[in-house]
Amino acid sequence: MKIAIAGYGNLGRGVECAAAQNKDIELVCVFTRRKPETVKLMTPGIPVLPVADMEKMADKIDVLIICGGSATDLPVQTPEYVKKFNVIDSFDTHAKIPEHFAAVDKAAKASGKVGIISCGWDPGLFSVNRLYASAILPEGKDYTFWGKGVSQGHSDAVRRIEGVVDARQYTIPVDEALAKVRTGENPELTTRQKHTREVFVVAAEGADKAKIEKEIVTMPNYFDEYDTVVRFIDMETMKKEHSGLPHGGFVIRTGSTGINKEHNHVIEYSLKLDSNPEFTASVLVAYARAAFRLNNEGVTGAKTVFDIAPAYLSPLSGDELRHKML
Amino acid sequence: MKIAIAGYGNLGRGVECAAAQNKDIELVCVFTRRKPETVKLMTPGIPVLPVADMEKMADKIDVLIICGGSATDLPVQTPEYVKKFNVIDSFDTHAKIPEHFAAVDKAAKASGKVGIISCGWDPGLFSVNRLYASAILPEGKDYTFWGKGVSQGHSDAVRRIEGVVDARQYTIPVDEALAKVRTGENPELTTRQKHTREVFVVAAEGADKAKIEKEIVTMPNYFDEYDTVVRFIDMETMKKEHSGLPHGGFVIRTGSTGINKEHNHVIEYSLKLDSNPEFTASVLVAYARAAFRLNNEGVTGAKTVFDIAPAYLSPLSGDELRHKML
Repeated sequence: MKIAIAGYGNLGRGVECAAAQNKDIELVCVFTRRKPETVKLMTPGIPVLPVADMEKMADKIDVLIICGGSATDLPVQTPEYVKKFNVIDSFDTHAKIPEHFAAVDKAAKASGKVGIISCGWDPGLFSVNRLYASAILPEGKDYTFWGKGVSQGHSDAVRRIEGVVDARQYTIPVDEALAKVRTGENPELTTRQKHTREVFVVAAEGADKAKIEKEIVTMPNYFDEYDTVVRFIDMETMKKEHSGLPHGGFVIRTGSTGINKEHNHVIEYSLKLDSNPEFTASVLVAYARAAFRLNNEGVTGAKTVFDIAPAYLSPLSGDELRHKML
Repeated sequence: MKIAIAGYGNLGRGVECAAAQNKDIELVCVFTRRKPETVKLMTPGIPVLPVADMEKMADKIDVLIICGGSATDLPVQTPEYVKKFNVIDSFDTHAKIPEHFAAVDKAAKASGKVGIISCGWDPGLFSVNRLYASAILPEGKDYTFWGKGVSQGHSDAVRRIEGVVDARQYTIPVDEALAKVRTGENPELTTRQKHTREVFVVAAEGADKAKIEKEIVTMPNYFDEYDTVVRFIDMETMKKEHSGLPHGGFVIRTGSTGINKEHNHVIEYSLKLDSNPEFTASVLVAYARAAFRLNNEGVTGAKTVFDIAPAYLSPLSGDELRHKML
């Protein structure tokens, strides 16, 4: 199966790594909006091409993995690129998913291609687990916790504060809340009870640290509803200890069965990821396999992780899967 | 959707409870090989019919949930019943799944029905999680731990020992092994390192307890490869403290990504179940929905959890799912 990457940031680099781990997948090229000669891949011999050349490559690529951002790139790119390619994206603006789905579905049905949207771990694997768990335990309650991990949006928000040179924000699930959920008591938890936030900040020389801290912890939407700890560090420490992009989280459903609902059950799914973009990319590559196979079977239109049978993600045959994994 | 139950043991009773929790599902009747008048349901007004009447009911039932045992019932029942019904079973003899699949597939394709086999949590939800995790992290290692929970097969084996009046066997995952797996070191673990076994025994009056204990801990296949603790208790304690059928377990995959495999990831799925049969039944009922829908779309033949897209399990529409769970 031949894939290409559109957009070579953290996620695109992750797809490059993931492609190298899957023997049935060949990375044909990377498309960029930058000057191709300024983009250096990790894998030797793979061409970097300008986006303008994309159409010419259409018959050489089975699936295009779109690695743009959800805010402005994907709403334009995915419906556009699906006119020529089977595509996958990781669109994660939850509220706009129905709109994005409709746009991709329309274009994909017209072109005869498959477009899998909102792929990754949340939305993605977490969504799938919410679905399985709620279908199996209809009388129950869902909980999603994120972290410990770096939130890029929150880190960016802190970086925009005057006097901040660099910042890294960690979202941390509260252990007591997790423990309470696992008891099956179905607690009602506030935002503050579920997660705390920890911010590492490099301040400019002479900056008013007390003022920066106050601006952070009171920032509407981002921090005001959370207990936030701010720690000032120097640039060296930032680079040494906070240059990774770890993340993860928990999806838990508790529910009861029995004629008098006398039996409780806990279904828990969790991820602990050293690299958020590389893991997300690995999910995208597995679903690229599904897009290719579905399209070969004549399927067209927009799909999500909900619409795709697990077997489509694996390079193994049905026989092998039943033998080894069932 | 109208379902029926074939076989009214622990699992059949679980299906009865699960049907009552799902508004889109109606339990039409229960089929039994016993004298119907001797079988008492928990739900009033639902007929209990002899298996001989099954064929007459074919046009009143969308999916038949077969609640027989894997050893002798299901290999005969599932290929037979799929001639007239869409069916689901929980066939769990791993080594014989390919053979069972082939038999059900042949009969189901001939009759134009769908037969979903090996549904439950292992095989079932655990299998699905092994598949997702291995497709996403191709360079990694899988671990499955079971328990803490009652193993019926092991309990039965102990009950067959001379001088044993009743017995209950718990399989318990070893915490240190779980902890080691979660580090991502990909340890090689022996059977003994992964699980311990705890057996509660009611001995007959005057029985030789030392002899019973020795027979248990040295029993080939069942206990000899494990560290087993045997505890003698009285019948009252057995009834009071060990009458439930709890179970559960963990599916963990650790793997690495990155151009130099420098990033580790842990994917973990776990279940903690107060009632193994009721939870298994809840899985069967969710997949009954899938069998019905697939067959309505013209699909026929044998299927497993690998072949079924998550959306088929939920009563919600695609729009609702994308809106609420993605």
